[in-house]
Amino acid sequence: MTYDLNAAGQRAKLAARALAKASSDEKNRAVLAIADALEAHSEAILAANARDLEAARARGLAETLIRDRFDLTSRMGGIIRDVRKVAELPDPVGTVITDSTLANGLNARKVRTPIGVIGMIYEARPNVTADCAVLALKTGNASILRGGSEVFHSNMAVMAAISGALHALNLPHVPADSIQFIESTDRAYVEQLLKLSQFVDMIIPRGGQSLHDFCRQNATIPVITGGLGIVHQFVDDTANLDHALSIAVNAKTQRPSVCNALDTLLVHEAIAGEFLPRAVQTLAPMGVTFRAEPRALALVDGLPGVQPAGEQDFDTEWMQLILGLKVVDGLDDAIEHINAHSTFHSEAIITETPEHADRFVREIDAAAVFVNTSTRFNDGSALGLGAEIAVSTQKLHARGPMALEELTTYKWVVVGSGQTRP
Amino acid sequence: MTYDLNAAGQRAKLAARALAKASSDEKNRAVLAIADALEAHSEAILAANARDLEAARARGLAETLIRDRFDLTSRMGGIIRDVRKVAELPDPVGTVITDSTLANGLNARKVRTPIGVIGMIYEARPNVTADCAVLALKTGNASILRGGSEVFHSNMAVMAAISGALHALNLPHVPADSIQFIESTDRAYVEQLLKLSQFVDMIIPRGGQSLHDFCRQNATIPVITGGLGIVHQFVDDTANLDHALSIAVNAKTQRPSVCNALDTLLVHEAIAGEFLPRAVQTLAPMGVTFRAEPRALALVDGLPGVQPAGEQDFDTEWMQLILGLKVVDGLDDAIEHINAHSTFHSEAIITETPEHADRFVREIDAAAVFVNTSTRFNDGSALGLGAEIAVSTQKLHARGPMALEELTTYKWVVVGSGQTRP
Repeated sequence: MTYDLNAAGQRAKLAARALAKASSDEKNRAVLAIADALEAHSEAILAANARDLEAARARGLAETLIRDRFDLTSRMGGIIRDVRKVAELPDPVGTVITDSTLANGLNARKVRTPIGVIGMIYEARPNVTADCAVLALKTGNASILRGGSEVFHSNMAVMAAISGALHALNLPHVPADSIQFIESTDRAYVEQLLKLSQFVDMIIPRGGQSLHDFCRQNATIPVITGGLGIVHQFVDDTANLDHALSIAVNAKTQRPSVCNALDTLLVHEAIAGEFLPRAVQTLAPMGVTFRAEPRALALVDGLPGVQPAGEQDFDTEWMQLILGLKVVDGLDDAIEHINAHSTFHSEAIITETPEHADRFVREIDAAAVFVNTSTRFNDGSALGLGAEIAVSTQKLHARGPMALEELTTYKWVVVGSGQTRP
Repeated sequence: MTYDLNAAGQRAKLAARALAKASSDEKNRAVLAIADALEAHSEAILAANARDLEAARARGLAETLIRDRFDLTSRMGGIIRDVRKVAELPDPVGTVITDSTLANGLNARKVRTPIGVIGMIYEARPNVTADCAVLALKTGNASILRGGSEVFHSNMAVMAAISGALHALNLPHVPADSIQFIESTDRAYVEQLLKLSQFVDMIIPRGGQSLHDFCRQNATIPVITGGLGIVHQFVDDTANLDHALSIAVNAKTQRPSVCNALDTLLVHEAIAGEFLPRAVQTLAPMGVTFRAEPRALALVDGLPGVQPAGEQDFDTEWMQLILGLKVVDGLDDAIEHINAHSTFHSEAIITETPEHADRFVREIDAAAVFVNTSTRFNDGSALGLGAEIAVSTQKLHARGPMALEELTTYKWVVVGSGQTRP
């Protein structure tokens, strides 16, 4: 290994100390300088990207994967726009969370602060490099980024633009070391990063389940895990079936490869005879195929794309145009199925019975629960947070979409006038 | 191993589902029933405790340790009172953290929920068993407790009271499995608990640094770490020296064995000649001895209890009546020393210069920073939180004292009327 990750960690820690002193204005200037640099370096970034695409094609990777996950050709404008938008978001650092004056006259406040050094480990998508770098910077955190090997050259070109911008800007509170990239595709660095507890305060993985599991099992630093979403939509007997159908279409087909896409449709037996055939007839022409358990199968057998569900089908995150179908006796049965099969990422109920909505919301312990709307809304931008660095399905620190506030911690500031503890 | 921890985890998970449905009133009834049971079982608990104390004396453990950490004789009243107090605290579960209606009409709320199942690993202090059990219960969490082997019989007796109370109360939403205790002193269970990610959502260790390190290194579940506090007090040139002295006395001597006790006194060179001899002359009669670096030594050499500081002395958490003494050039030098030696638990500045207080607060990245008051206030009760389950020095989820709110997470509840994502 030639890249010195330990030294990078040390530099990141020092950069974090400088960043903690940066004003919102200084941080925003740096974010905008990065946007300008990405614009100025667009040609070089796209040339590096072309090299990655060529290598991916030479390795025989699927063309859809290459287009969806690696190709920046039509995306540079969007990436630069997204970076500029971050400069406009409010800075959470310095916000007072609680403020109380105690009986002894002490003033105790919880004040938002940067976390320190954030390690990001992500697969593919070179836009994540720019995204994460500026979200961390905006919140006063230093970052050490580890991108996927398939887009290594693209990432290096993006990083060259970012580092160049910070060097040229030369702000004492935003040193160039604020954003660092592990300049190697050697996987050994991932493991080393996960144990760099002396310098790194938090690890955010973005990628598939195996990456999240690897991080959880190997890290000695707190990790925000997420990734896997086995997502259900329960259509209750009182549901507005037009809504139930358009929501299922949206949740299943709008972007089937993402974690908040629908995997299993649970339908109340009272309306299953009407709703299930209609759902299949609407979704099948969109390319969806179905895995139906016996009671559902009896209602849609012979319709296009329908096959009996296999044993693992209700424990599978499909990430493609496949949908599980199941008839349930009612709300209790639906809740029981979800509790047995969910990964507690995003869960929806479609109902006009407020008591059922309330029970579903209370008894389904998912990061996000949806009533009469699509699970696709489990997303930082869609929920009005202005940005998103990851979606957490663990319960500590942050749950669901993580935006700027979730990249901060707090400190207690206690101000007195000589008080001592009795 | 005869205790089936996996089965306990499974039962805890089911109990957590029931607890999530419990009302504040049900949870408070259970807490009060536990207090009553502890009162009714006091004799049995003290008899079990006597057995532990006898065994500890037979093993030759220090009498001060036995009295301070194991002995319940004069403590039962306090334990029962503390449990009753928890019933009176506000229930954070169900609190709405944010509530916004988006442009598309969706209502998105972040609502506080229990975390689920909490694993507590603690050393000695049988009062922790009752404390942690009711704090977890109050916040709707199931708990699996692992107490220290020295007070195993005391803990088992406390647990018998708790379990008996929950059995007798027989509330459907507060099953007896809500609070479980690992009925074995075999250390293998600690490691197993740290990896029980299928059932346990969070681990809180309470004990020395080695326990925290062990948890961090072995857990596949998020761990709240803390424990070690190398604590500084910087006395600035404008400090009110009477305050500086009484605060140092409080922070060093009130309870020397705890993590927010003072370890190092940093004194501005302009007032060191006046303040240091006075501090030594006040503290020495209280039994404090001193480790002074050369510049400080020159000012207090020959005074009682003073010796030159050794190489590791400024990187040591004393936990006893020893105090490091150092003269610094000023604020920058003090900040530099703290950044190099602190564990970022509790740090104090004594100054009448507001700009110095501001810089200290901003640039010292500790869980709690104190201006003109004692670091001993880094404590849940002292800061007005009404309770404390642990003090965190990590940056995710909770920092500083953890009380009821820190035992909760949140879920997103998104309510619509048929909206789909464009």
